[in-house]
Amino acid sequence: MQMMVTTTDRFDANRDRILRISAELFAKNGYHATGVAALSDAVKLGRGALYHYIGSKEALLYEICKTQVDAMNTHAQGVMIADYSAEALLGEMARGLLRNIADHRNEWGVFFRDYSALTGDRRDEVFAARERYESYWRQALDRGVKAGVLRHTPELLVKGILGMLNYTYLWFEPDGKVSPEELADFFMDILFQGIR
Amino acid sequence: MQMMVTTTDRFDANRDRILRISAELFAKNGYHATGVAALSDAVKLGRGALYHYIGSKEALLYEICKTQVDAMNTHAQGVMIADYSAEALLGEMARGLLRNIADHRNEWGVFFRDYSALTGDRRDEVFAARERYESYWRQALDRGVKAGVLRHTPELLVKGILGMLNYTYLWFEPDGKVSPEELADFFMDILFQGIR
Repeated sequence: MQMMVTTTDRFDANRDRILRISAELFAKNGYHATGVAALSDAVKLGRGALYHYIGSKEALLYEICKTQVDAMNTHAQGVMIADYSAEALLGEMARGLLRNIADHRNEWGVFFRDYSALTGDRRDEVFAARERYESYWRQALDRGVKAGVLRHTPELLVKGILGMLNYTYLWFEPDGKVSPEELADFFMDILFQGIR
Repeated sequence: MQMMVTTTDRFDANRDRILRISAELFAKNGYHATGVAALSDAVKLGRGALYHYIGSKEALLYEICKTQVDAMNTHAQGVMIADYSAEALLGEMARGLLRNIADHRNEWGVFFRDYSALTGDRRDEVFAARERYESYWRQALDRGVKAGVLRHTPELLVKGILGMLNYTYLWFEPDGKVSPEELADFFMDILFQGIR
Protein backbone atom coordinates (compact mmCIF):
# COMPACT_ATOMS: atom_id res chain seq x y z
CA MET A 1 0.00 0.00 0.00
CA GLN A 2 1.38 3.38 -0.96
CA MET A 3 1.44 6.37 1.40
CA MET A 4 -0.90 9.02 0.14
CA VAL A 5 -0.13 12.69 0.44
CA THR A 6 -3.51 14.35 0.51
CA THR A 7 -4.29 17.98 -0.22
CA THR A 8 -4.93 18.47 3.51
CA ASP A 9 -1.50 17.04 4.39
CA ARG A 10 0.14 19.37 1.93
CA PHE A 11 -1.84 22.33 3.24
CA ASP A 12 -0.86 21.51 6.84
CA ALA A 13 2.79 20.97 5.94
CA ASN A 14 2.93 24.31 4.15
CA ARG A 15 1.16 26.01 7.01
CA ASP A 16 3.59 24.58 9.58
CA ARG A 17 6.50 25.68 7.40
CA ILE A 18 5.06 29.21 7.18
CA LEU A 19 4.58 29.36 10.96
CA ARG A 20 8.11 28.15 11.63
CA ILE A 21 9.75 30.59 9.21
CA SER A 22 7.57 33.49 10.40
CA ALA A 23 8.48 32.81 14.02
CA GLU A 24 12.13 32.92 12.98
CA LEU A 25 11.66 36.29 11.26
CA PHE A 26 9.55 37.78 14.06
CA ALA A 27 12.04 36.59 16.67
CA LYS A 28 14.92 38.10 14.74
CA ASN A 29 13.45 41.43 13.66
CA GLY A 30 10.39 41.90 15.82
CA TYR A 31 6.77 41.39 14.88
CA HIS A 32 5.99 45.02 14.09
CA ALA A 33 9.05 45.48 11.90
CA THR A 34 8.45 42.36 9.81
CA GLY A 35 6.41 43.25 6.75
CA VAL A 36 4.21 40.94 4.71
CA ALA A 37 6.61 41.38 1.77
CA ALA A 38 9.50 40.02 3.85
CA LEU A 39 7.34 37.12 5.04
CA SER A 40 6.25 36.37 1.51
CA ASP A 41 9.90 36.36 0.35
CA ALA A 42 11.05 34.15 3.20
CA VAL A 43 8.39 31.50 2.72
CA LYS A 44 8.70 31.72 -1.08
CA LEU A 45 5.00 32.26 -1.64
CA GLY A 46 3.17 35.16 -3.24
CA ARG A 47 1.00 37.35 -1.03
CA GLY A 48 -2.14 35.68 -2.31
CA ALA A 49 -0.88 32.19 -1.45
CA LEU A 50 0.36 33.38 1.92
CA TYR A 51 -3.07 34.81 2.77
CA HIS A 52 -4.62 31.53 1.63
CA TYR A 53 -2.65 29.73 4.33
CA ILE A 54 -2.84 32.26 7.13
CA GLY A 55 -5.06 35.25 6.44
CA SER A 56 -3.09 38.13 8.00
CA LYS A 57 0.10 38.97 9.81
CA GLU A 58 -1.78 39.16 13.09
CA ALA A 59 -3.31 35.75 12.42
CA LEU A 60 0.25 34.44 12.06
CA LEU A 61 1.25 35.94 15.40
CA TYR A 62 -1.86 34.47 16.95
CA GLU A 63 -1.14 30.99 15.57
CA ILE A 64 2.45 31.08 16.80
CA CYS A 65 1.47 32.14 20.32
CA LYS A 66 -1.65 30.00 20.60
CA THR A 67 0.12 26.86 19.39
CA GLN A 68 2.70 27.10 22.17
CA VAL A 69 0.28 27.86 24.99
CA ASP A 70 -2.11 25.18 23.81
CA ALA A 71 0.71 22.65 23.74
CA MET A 72 1.57 23.51 27.35
CA ASN A 73 -2.06 23.34 28.43
CA THR A 74 -2.43 19.94 26.79
CA HIS A 75 0.75 18.80 28.51
CA ALA A 76 -0.43 20.06 31.90
CA GLN A 77 -3.84 18.42 31.51
CA GLY A 78 -2.13 15.16 30.58
CA VAL A 79 0.12 15.04 33.61
CA MET A 80 -2.60 16.27 35.96
CA ILE A 81 -4.83 13.30 35.29
CA ALA A 82 -1.94 10.87 35.77
CA ASP A 83 -1.37 9.48 39.24
CA TYR A 84 1.54 11.71 40.28
CA SER A 85 2.36 13.06 43.72
CA ALA A 86 2.19 16.86 43.85
CA GLU A 87 5.95 17.23 43.59
CA ALA A 88 6.26 14.75 40.75
CA LEU A 89 3.42 16.55 38.98
CA LEU A 90 5.03 19.99 39.35
CA GLY A 91 8.32 18.45 38.23
CA GLU A 92 6.69 17.05 35.09
CA MET A 93 5.09 20.40 34.35
CA ALA A 94 8.43 22.17 34.68
CA ARG A 95 10.17 19.56 32.52
CA GLY A 96 7.51 19.83 29.85
CA LEU A 97 7.74 23.62 29.77
CA LEU A 98 11.55 23.79 29.61
CA ARG A 99 11.66 21.09 26.92
CA ASN A 100 9.08 22.97 24.86
CA ILE A 101 10.91 26.28 25.26
CA ALA A 102 14.23 24.66 24.31
CA ASP A 103 12.64 23.15 21.21
CA HIS A 104 10.76 26.33 20.22
CA ARG A 105 12.92 29.24 21.24
CA ASN A 106 11.85 31.43 18.33
CA GLU A 107 8.18 30.84 19.02
CA TRP A 108 8.56 31.63 22.73
CA GLY A 109 10.68 34.66 21.91
CA VAL A 110 7.82 35.93 19.74
CA PHE A 111 5.34 35.04 22.44
CA PHE A 112 7.07 36.92 25.25
CA ARG A 113 8.06 39.89 23.14
CA ASP A 114 4.96 40.37 21.07
CA TYR A 115 1.86 38.62 22.29
CA SER A 116 0.61 41.93 23.64
CA ALA A 117 0.42 43.12 20.01
CA LEU A 118 -2.58 40.84 19.50
CA THR A 119 -5.96 42.56 19.43
CA GLY A 120 -9.63 41.69 20.00
CA ASP A 121 -10.70 38.06 20.25
CA ARG A 122 -7.24 36.78 19.41
CA ARG A 123 -5.77 38.70 22.30
CA ASP A 124 -8.52 37.51 24.64
CA GLU A 125 -8.03 33.89 23.61
CA VAL A 126 -4.28 33.86 24.11
CA PHE A 127 -4.60 35.69 27.43
CA ALA A 128 -7.25 33.20 28.55
CA ALA A 129 -5.11 30.23 27.50
CA ARG A 130 -2.19 31.73 29.39
CA GLU A 131 -4.39 32.22 32.45
CA ARG A 132 -5.49 28.61 32.19
CA TYR A 133 -1.88 27.47 32.16
CA GLU A 134 -1.14 29.46 35.30
CA SER A 135 -4.23 27.98 36.95
CA TYR A 136 -2.88 24.46 36.34
CA TRP A 137 0.23 25.44 38.25
CA ARG A 138 -1.86 26.81 41.08
CA GLN A 139 -3.91 23.61 41.15
CA ALA A 140 -0.76 21.50 41.25
CA LEU A 141 0.63 23.56 44.14
CA ASP A 142 -2.75 23.25 45.92
CA ARG A 143 -2.60 19.50 45.50
CA GLY A 144 0.67 19.58 47.44
CA VAL A 145 -0.86 21.76 50.14
CA LYS A 146 -3.86 19.44 50.48
CA ALA A 147 -1.59 16.40 50.66
CA GLY A 148 0.30 18.13 53.47
CA VAL A 149 3.53 18.07 51.47
CA LEU A 150 3.82 21.74 50.56
CA ARG A 151 2.99 24.73 52.69
CA HIS A 152 0.42 27.27 51.62
CA THR A 153 1.98 30.12 49.60
CA PRO A 154 0.54 33.29 48.02
CA GLU A 155 -0.71 32.99 44.45
CA LEU A 156 2.12 35.21 43.22
CA LEU A 157 4.52 32.32 43.65
CA VAL A 158 3.27 30.89 40.36
CA LYS A 159 4.43 34.06 38.59
CA GLY A 160 7.82 33.63 40.23
CA ILE A 161 8.15 29.99 39.23
CA LEU A 162 7.03 30.71 35.69
CA GLY A 163 9.48 33.62 35.53
CA MET A 164 12.29 31.29 36.51
CA LEU A 165 11.24 28.78 33.83
CA ASN A 166 10.04 31.06 31.03
CA TYR A 167 13.08 33.30 31.17
CA THR A 168 15.15 30.35 29.90
CA TYR A 169 14.02 31.27 26.39
CA LEU A 170 16.56 34.11 26.64
CA TRP A 171 19.62 32.18 27.76
CA PHE A 172 19.22 28.41 27.70
CA GLU A 173 21.59 26.65 25.31
CA PRO A 174 19.84 23.54 23.99
CA ASP A 175 23.21 22.07 22.96
CA GLY A 176 24.90 22.83 26.27
CA LYS A 177 25.87 20.48 29.09
CA VAL A 178 22.54 20.63 30.90
CA SER A 179 19.35 19.26 29.40
CA PRO A 180 16.07 21.15 29.81
CA GLU A 181 14.84 18.32 32.04
CA GLU A 182 17.91 18.51 34.30
CA LEU A 183 17.51 22.27 34.57
CA ALA A 184 13.83 21.88 35.44
CA ASP A 185 14.70 19.36 38.17
CA PHE A 186 17.40 21.64 39.54
CA PHE A 187 15.10 24.66 39.78
CA MET A 188 12.15 22.69 41.13
CA ASP A 189 14.22 20.90 43.77
CA ILE A 190 15.28 24.25 45.20
CA LEU A 191 11.71 25.52 45.11
CA PHE A 192 10.39 22.36 46.77
CA GLN A 193 12.89 22.74 49.59
CA GLY A 194 11.68 26.32 49.91
CA ILE A 195 7.99 25.51 50.12
CA ARG A 196 7.84 22.12 51.79
CA MET B 1 20.84 83.17 46.22
CA GLN B 2 18.86 82.24 43.15
CA MET B 3 18.87 78.76 41.66
CA MET B 4 20.64 78.83 38.35
CA VAL B 5 19.49 76.69 35.47
CA THR B 6 22.61 76.18 33.40
CA THR B 7 22.77 75.12 29.78
CA THR B 8 24.02 71.73 30.97
CA ASP B 9 21.02 71.31 33.27
CA ARG B 10 18.67 72.12 30.43
CA PHE B 11 20.50 69.74 28.09
CA ASP B 12 20.31 66.93 30.67
CA ALA B 13 16.63 67.57 31.41
CA ASN B 14 15.76 67.47 27.73
CA ARG B 15 17.85 64.36 27.26
CA ASP B 16 16.11 62.58 30.16
CA ARG B 17 12.74 63.58 28.75
CA ILE B 18 13.69 62.19 25.33
CA LEU B 19 14.86 58.91 26.87
CA ARG B 20 11.67 58.54 28.91
CA ILE B 21 9.34 59.24 25.99
CA SER B 22 11.36 57.03 23.63
CA ALA B 23 11.24 54.15 26.11
CA GLU B 24 7.47 54.56 26.22
CA LEU B 25 7.23 54.45 22.41
CA PHE B 26 9.65 51.53 22.05
CA ALA B 27 7.85 49.59 24.79
CA LYS B 28 4.50 50.17 23.12
CA ASN B 29 5.35 49.62 19.47
CA GLY B 30 8.70 47.85 19.50
CA TYR B 31 12.10 49.33 18.79
CA HIS B 32 12.31 48.29 15.15
CA ALA B 33 8.87 49.60 14.31
CA THR B 34 9.40 53.02 15.88
CA GLY B 35 10.73 55.44 13.26
CA VAL B 36 12.75 58.59 13.88
CA ALA B 37 9.80 60.64 12.58
CA ALA B 38 7.51 59.21 15.29
CA LEU B 39 10.18 59.84 17.94
CA SER B 40 10.66 63.38 16.71
CA ASP B 41 6.87 63.99 16.87
CA ALA B 42 6.54 62.51 20.35
CA VAL B 43 9.34 64.54 21.90
CA LYS B 44 8.31 67.65 19.95
CA LEU B 45 11.76 68.27 18.54
CA GLY B 46 12.92 68.41 14.94
CA ARG B 47 15.19 65.65 13.69
CA GLY B 48 18.21 67.93 13.91
CA ALA B 49 17.55 68.78 17.56
CA LEU B 50 16.83 65.13 18.37
CA TYR B 51 20.15 64.08 16.88
CA HIS B 52 21.84 66.85 18.85
CA TYR B 53 20.63 65.20 22.05
CA ILE B 54 21.05 61.58 21.16
CA GLY B 55 22.74 60.92 17.84
CA SER B 56 20.81 57.96 16.46
CA LYS B 57 17.93 55.62 17.21
CA GLU B 58 20.36 52.91 18.22
CA ALA B 59 22.11 55.35 20.55
CA LEU B 60 18.71 55.91 22.20
CA LEU B 61 18.19 52.18 22.68
CA TYR B 62 21.69 51.92 24.07
CA GLU B 63 21.12 54.76 26.55
CA ILE B 64 17.83 53.27 27.74
CA CYS B 65 19.34 49.82 28.31
CA LYS B 66 22.68 50.99 29.68
CA THR B 67 21.07 53.40 32.15
CA GLN B 68 19.03 50.60 33.75
CA VAL B 69 21.85 48.07 33.97
CA ASP B 70 24.28 50.70 35.25
CA ALA B 71 21.79 51.70 37.94
CA MET B 72 21.55 48.08 39.08
CA ASN B 73 25.31 47.63 39.03
CA THR B 74 25.75 50.77 41.11
CA HIS B 75 23.10 49.53 43.52
CA ALA B 76 24.74 46.11 43.80
CA GLN B 77 28.18 47.64 44.39
CA GLY B 78 26.70 49.88 47.08
CA VAL B 79 25.10 47.08 49.05
CA MET B 80 28.07 44.75 48.58
CA ILE B 81 30.45 47.06 50.40
CA ALA B 82 27.98 47.53 53.26
CA ASP B 83 28.25 45.18 56.21
CA TYR B 84 25.37 42.85 55.35
CA SER B 85 25.06 39.15 55.96
CA ALA B 86 24.84 37.15 52.73
CA GLU B 87 21.07 36.76 53.02
CA ALA B 88 20.49 40.42 53.84
CA LEU B 89 22.72 41.35 50.92
CA LEU B 90 20.84 39.14 48.46
CA GLY B 91 17.61 40.49 49.88
CA GLU B 92 18.73 44.07 49.27
CA MET B 93 19.78 43.22 45.73
CA ALA B 94 16.39 41.67 45.02
CA ARG B 95 14.57 44.65 46.56
CA GLY B 96 16.63 47.11 44.56
CA LEU B 97 15.97 45.25 41.32
CA LEU B 98 12.21 44.88 41.82
CA ARG B 99 11.88 48.52 42.88
CA ASN B 100 13.80 49.64 39.80
CA ILE B 101 11.73 47.43 37.50
CA ALA B 102 8.48 48.70 39.06
CA ASP B 103 9.62 52.31 38.59
CA HIS B 104 10.90 51.77 35.03
CA ARG B 105 8.68 49.20 33.42
CA ASN B 106 8.92 50.74 29.96
CA GLU B 107 12.70 50.85 30.10
CA TRP B 108 12.94 47.22 31.24
CA GLY B 109 10.38 46.20 28.66
CA VAL B 110 12.61 47.73 26.00
CA PHE B 111 15.64 46.12 27.58
CA PHE B 112 14.28 42.58 27.60
CA ARG B 113 12.57 42.82 24.26
CA ASP B 114 15.15 44.69 22.26
CA TYR B 115 18.61 44.84 23.75
CA SER B 116 19.70 42.18 21.30
CA ALA B 117 19.06 44.74 18.53
CA LEU B 118 22.16 46.63 19.66
CA THR B 119 25.25 46.22 17.50
CA GLY B 120 29.03 46.56 17.80
CA ASP B 121 30.53 48.27 20.85
CA ARG B 122 27.14 49.26 22.22
CA ARG B 123 26.03 45.65 22.22
CA ASP B 124 29.28 44.52 23.82
CA GLU B 125 29.03 47.16 26.55
CA VAL B 126 25.46 46.33 27.52
CA PHE B 127 26.21 42.60 27.46
CA ALA B 128 29.29 43.17 29.62
CA ALA B 129 27.33 45.33 32.09
CA ARG B 130 24.67 42.63 32.25
CA GLU B 131 27.35 39.99 32.86
CA ARG B 132 28.78 42.14 35.64
CA TYR B 133 25.39 42.33 37.29
CA GLU B 134 25.05 38.56 37.20
CA SER B 135 28.54 38.24 38.66
CA TYR B 136 27.50 40.36 41.68
CA TRP B 137 24.71 37.89 42.34
CA ARG B 138 27.14 34.99 42.10
CA GLN B 139 29.51 36.77 44.48
CA ALA B 140 26.68 37.40 46.94
CA LEU B 141 25.66 33.73 46.82
CA ASP B 142 29.31 32.73 47.26
CA ARG B 143 29.51 34.95 50.33
CA GLY B 144 26.68 32.89 51.80
CA VAL B 145 28.45 29.64 50.92
CA LYS B 146 31.70 30.83 52.50
CA ALA B 147 29.85 31.94 55.62
CA GLY B 148 28.38 28.45 55.85
CA VAL B 149 24.82 29.84 55.56
CA LEU B 150 23.97 28.76 52.02
CA ARG B 151 24.86 25.53 50.32
CA HIS B 152 26.87 25.46 47.13
CA THR B 153 24.65 25.62 44.03
CA PRO B 154 25.40 25.54 40.29
CA GLU B 155 25.97 28.91 38.61
CA LEU B 156 22.73 28.53 36.65
CA LEU B 157 20.80 29.34 39.81
CA VAL B 158 21.54 33.02 39.24
CA LYS B 159 19.73 32.81 35.90
CA GLY B 160 16.78 31.25 37.67
CA ILE B 161 16.67 33.90 40.40
CA LEU B 162 16.99 36.70 37.88
CA GLY B 163 14.26 35.11 35.77
CA MET B 164 11.97 35.14 38.78
CA LEU B 165 12.76 38.79 39.47
CA ASN B 166 13.14 40.19 35.95
CA TYR B 167 9.95 38.62 34.67
CA THR B 168 8.01 40.95 37.01
CA TYR B 169 8.33 43.64 34.33
CA LEU B 170 5.60 41.72 32.48
CA TRP B 171 3.05 41.39 35.26
CA PHE B 172 3.86 43.35 38.39
CA GLU B 173 1.26 46.03 39.23
CA PRO B 174 3.08 48.92 40.93
CA ASP B 175 -0.25 50.15 42.35
CA GLY B 176 -1.33 46.73 43.59
CA LYS B 177 -1.49 45.37 47.13
CA VAL B 178 2.08 44.11 47.23
CA SER B 179 5.06 46.45 47.10
CA PRO B 180 8.14 45.52 45.05
CA GLU B 181 10.06 45.15 48.30
CA GLU B 182 7.50 42.78 49.80
CA LEU B 183 7.50 40.71 46.62
CA ALA B 184 11.31 40.57 46.66
CA ASP B 185 11.27 39.38 50.28
CA PHE B 186 8.65 36.76 49.50
CA PHE B 187 10.59 35.30 46.57
CA MET B 188 13.94 35.46 48.33
CA ASP B 189 12.62 33.84 51.52
CA ILE B 190 11.51 30.84 49.53
CA LEU B 191 14.83 30.68 47.72
CA PHE B 192 16.78 30.98 50.96
CA GLN B 193 14.84 28.10 52.45
CA GLY B 194 15.66 26.17 49.29
CA ILE B 195 19.40 26.79 49.39
CA ARG B 196 20.25 27.04 53.09
